[in-house]
Amino acid sequence: MEMARPLDALNKARGKRVLVELKNNKQYVGNLVAFDIHINTVLENAEERVDGELKRNLGTVFIRGDTITILSPQ
Amino acid sequence: MEMARPLDALNKARGKRVLVELKNNKQYVGNLVAFDIHINTVLENAEERVDGELKRNLGTVFIRGDTITILSPQ
Amino acid sequence: MEMARPLDALNKARGKRVLVELKNNKQYVGNLVAFDIHINTVLENAEERVDGELKRNLGTVFIRGDTITILSPQ
Amino acid sequence: MEMARPLDALNKARGKRVLVELKNNKQYVGNLVAFDIHINTVLENAEERVDGELKRNLGTVFIRGDTITILSPQ
Amino acid sequence: MEMARPLDALNKARGKRVLVELKNNKQYVGNLVAFDIHINTVLENAEERVDGELKRNLGTVFIRGDTITILSPQ
Amino acid sequence: MEMARPLDALNKARGKRVLVELKNNKQYVGNLVAFDIHINTVLENAEERVDGELKRNLGTVFIRGDTITILSPQ
Amino acid sequence: MEMARPLDALNKARGKRVLVELKNNKQYVGNLVAFDIHINTVLENAEERVDGELKRNLGTVFIRGDTITILSPQ
Repeated sequence: MEMARPLDALNKARGKRVLVELKNNKQYVGNLVAFDIHINTVLENAEERVDGELKRNLGTVFIRGDTITILSPQ
Repeated sequence: MEMARPLDALNKARGKRVLVELKNNKQYVGNLVAFDIHINTVLENAEERVDGELKRNLGTVFIRGDTITILSPQ
Repeated sequence: MEMARPLDALNKARGKRVLVELKNNKQYVGNLVAFDIHINTVLENAEERVDGELKRNLGTVFIRGDTITILSPQ
Repeated sequence: MEMARPLDALNKARGKRVLVELKNNKQYVGNLVAFDIHINTVLENAEERVDGELKRNLGTVFIRGDTITILSPQ
Repeated sequence: MEMARPLDALNKARGKRVLVELKNNKQYVGNLVAFDIHINTVLENAEERVDGELKRNLGTVFIRGDTITILSPQ
Repeated sequence: MEMARPLDALNKARGKRVLVELKNNKQYVGNLVAFDIHINTVLENAEERVDGELKRNLGTVFIRGDTITILSPQ
Repeated sequence: MEMARPLDALNKARGKRVLVELKNNKQYVGNLVAFDIHINTVLENAEERVDGELKRNLGTVFIRGDTITILSPQ
């Protein structure tokens, strides 16, 4: 309840492992290294999952914000 | 009727349990801790439901506003 | 014909029962308590209908404007 | 050819019966009482049609502009 | 090659017969009387076609720009 | 690598034959005569292709930028 | 963790081979030569893949930013 703005929640997750889900149902799990007000997001040591199953290891991935539905710290 | 602006309704729901539904039909129920003018929303102690059935416990979840259809205090 | 701007029609409906239809075909009927220029809308004593059939009673509901197709006073 | 801007065509149709078609293929026919630069539109004595068939009489209807494909005076 | 900006091509087509195609695959052919920077477009003596076949004569039609894919002088 | 901004690549293609692909999978091949920051694009001597097959010769075509996925010099 | 903003990750990838995935599931792999704040992107020596299989060699390709889901250095 001590967070005033939604981006504060992302700031608290910086450097931690997060789950990012997209409108196309793909999921990326990685270390949150950067985001901006459009919710453009960069993960490192990222893996792509579809229906929870590992598809690919991607290393660094830039995710365009408008394609994201949710982010959740793991 | 004492609310002039739609965000007043969200302010009144801060700290309370709310239901958030997305364009992809997923539902999130959790404690509303933050939102902004884009309706980017953060829930805590959140659970994801599909067709009303519990799918996952997510803890903290950031929901991108443009993917939301409705929010309703529980 | 005495209305110059579309939002005047919404202002006249404030406090009255309105039907709101969404792009996903869901319908909400409730008392219009608030709206803004994005057509973000708050209804009270709202019920959700699909194909005209009552699905749920929601109490207060915040509807994100960009998901709305039409509003009509009942 | 004497119209310089598209909204001039809507101004000429004010108070007249117009057809409004939406991206979801629904059609509304009613008296044009108001519109704005987003093409948010208010019709009175409106009826909803699907595939040309009358579905409902709606009285006053507010149509969100971004859901509209065409407007045409009847 | 003497056109610097895309809207110059629309200006050259003013008063001429043009084909307008929409994201929903409908086609409108009519005299181009007005357009603006959003590509909101007004045609006169317009006919609607689906898959190249005449569906309706519409007279004047206002087409919301964001629903348009292409315009081409006939 | 000497291009700093994406529109520089379009400037270099001005007057040359380019392929433009749309979100609806249609392809247009023509001489690039104009574009703007929204990527609204005008081609001359344009032909429309679906799945690589010639469908129509269009002469001049204005393509609304938001419907474009890629442009590539031929 | 030394990156503050998402575009820093793209800057680091300039001149390197990157994978770009689109909302329509097409993939482009090429040398990143330019991008802007809309994530409009230019690749050189690009190839198009569908489900990981090579479809076409495209040379230079301009990709409209709003159609992109992810970018990842290879």
